[in-house]
Amino acid sequence: MKRGKFLNYQLIIQYDGSRYDGWQRQGNTGNTIQGKLEEVLGRMLGEKIEIQGAGRTDAGVHALGQTANFHSNQKLDTEILKKELNRYLPEDIGIVRVQKVGERFHSRLNAVGKIYRYRIALGTVKNVFERKQIYLLNQELNLEQMGKAAEKMTGKRDFKGFSTGKSKKSTLRTLKEIRIFEENGEVVLEFEGDGFLYNMVRILTGTLLEVGMGKRDIESISEIFEKKDRTLAGFTAPARGLTLVKVFYPKGESIS
Amino acid sequence: MKRGKFLNYQLIIQYDGSRYDGWQRQGNTGNTIQGKLEEVLGRMLGEKIEIQGAGRTDAGVHALGQTANFHSNQKLDTEILKKELNRYLPEDIGIVRVQKVGERFHSRLNAVGKIYRYRIALGTVKNVFERKQIYLLNQELNLEQMGKAAEKMTGKRDFKGFSTGKSKKSTLRTLKEIRIFEENGEVVLEFEGDGFLYNMVRILTGTLLEVGMGKRDIESISEIFEKKDRTLAGFTAPARGLTLVKVFYPKGESIS
Repeated sequence: MKRGKFLNYQLIIQYDGSRYDGWQRQGNTGNTIQGKLEEVLGRMLGEKIEIQGAGRTDAGVHALGQTANFHSNQKLDTEILKKELNRYLPEDIGIVRVQKVGERFHSRLNAVGKIYRYRIALGTVKNVFERKQIYLLNQELNLEQMGKAAEKMTGKRDFKGFSTGKSKKSTLRTLKEIRIFEENGEVVLEFEGDGFLYNMVRILTGTLLEVGMGKRDIESISEIFEKKDRTLAGFTAPARGLTLVKVFYPKGESIS
Repeated sequence: MKRGKFLNYQLIIQYDGSRYDGWQRQGNTGNTIQGKLEEVLGRMLGEKIEIQGAGRTDAGVHALGQTANFHSNQKLDTEILKKELNRYLPEDIGIVRVQKVGERFHSRLNAVGKIYRYRIALGTVKNVFERKQIYLLNQELNLEQMGKAAEKMTGKRDFKGFSTGKSKKSTLRTLKEIRIFEENGEVVLEFEGDGFLYNMVRILTGTLLEVGMGKRDIESISEIFEKKDRTLAGFTAPARGLTLVKVFYPKGESIS
């Protein structure tokens, strides 16, 4: 809750992250999605706006359903706000919905789950129009082996070995499911969990890809969890293939 | 038919035309799709390759199903050729299929029909991922009026007034159908005909948009056909919204 500002607005946001330095504003420098939103909102409303996003997506990562919220004392028509935002924001950032939420709602702290999607092209089909949302691997993958490895990653676990974050906070997360499927010459990995550490989806993806390419044994997965050592896990898959698809909240608390 | 070269290969090509100076090679200058294909094919096959495209799309215009063909005396495996082309072409040009065709087949001269699609965003939904294939109009359109105007454009007619071409060849074309529909906050115009003059689809689109915005009477359409005067027709809609969807050939003559 922003001191002295009592109205709280939630946004559902899509963006093509290709040309941004990620979601999170870095002081007054950097070209970030958060910074761009705050700048446009600030100009529109004539007051300093601070926005809270649910997921701090990295440079080059995209979103279909990022959520964020900001406080103001101005009573705003949500439909008009959405329309004006879409008009003044750059064409690679779009607002899908705007909604009033309870004063204490916080996009990140209240989130109870998220879905991330990672898309990999195998080189059989070339998707020229969505190329910036797909990692081009140009190699065959053994999906059955990847599925077996994914099973060893799900559940409530300490994901420290699958993260490059340096925070001392808990690295315990529940990875509910990893869905792996083939679609139009792509392999798609969907990760659903209660929360994700820094770089976690991309390192899980890199590790699964190494299994799929036959470069890694499934047994190695358990070792990464035991030793909590990032150097034992796979490579960090490139940002471009990753999209934040959806953020979940407890029922009735917000849109999602 | 290319003198002295007896094998003929047809390609189905997709491209994001955003960063190209159109399809047609302009001598040795310019960054064109044809030029890029000839360059990559020439390097791969070690001989000078000349490629014939079905539609000479403008700078910024896209394709889902452009077709082209080239002659060579080399016996090529079409699957390997497709794969290698996709590997060496830039990521905004993709090969969907490759097929051997009869020696005399010519992509442009043998084509009996084409479908072009024009996409217009109304400003209600912002499509951040496909933005480069959509013209952002940010205005409501009266589709019923546009439909009535479109009826006056179809049939076998002289489309001179809807073209900026300076050729003395016949400007008689058959526009079989214009389909107008709304989809995900976009208005889509699909033009199906036996052939299209230079800038014809974009001028037809501009004229229909003026009707839809209430800036032009439907009666004016007949006048453009009568006077064959381009200045009476509407504006040339921007290239970015236009996509060559499909090229038709007589049955059995080629893939399409």
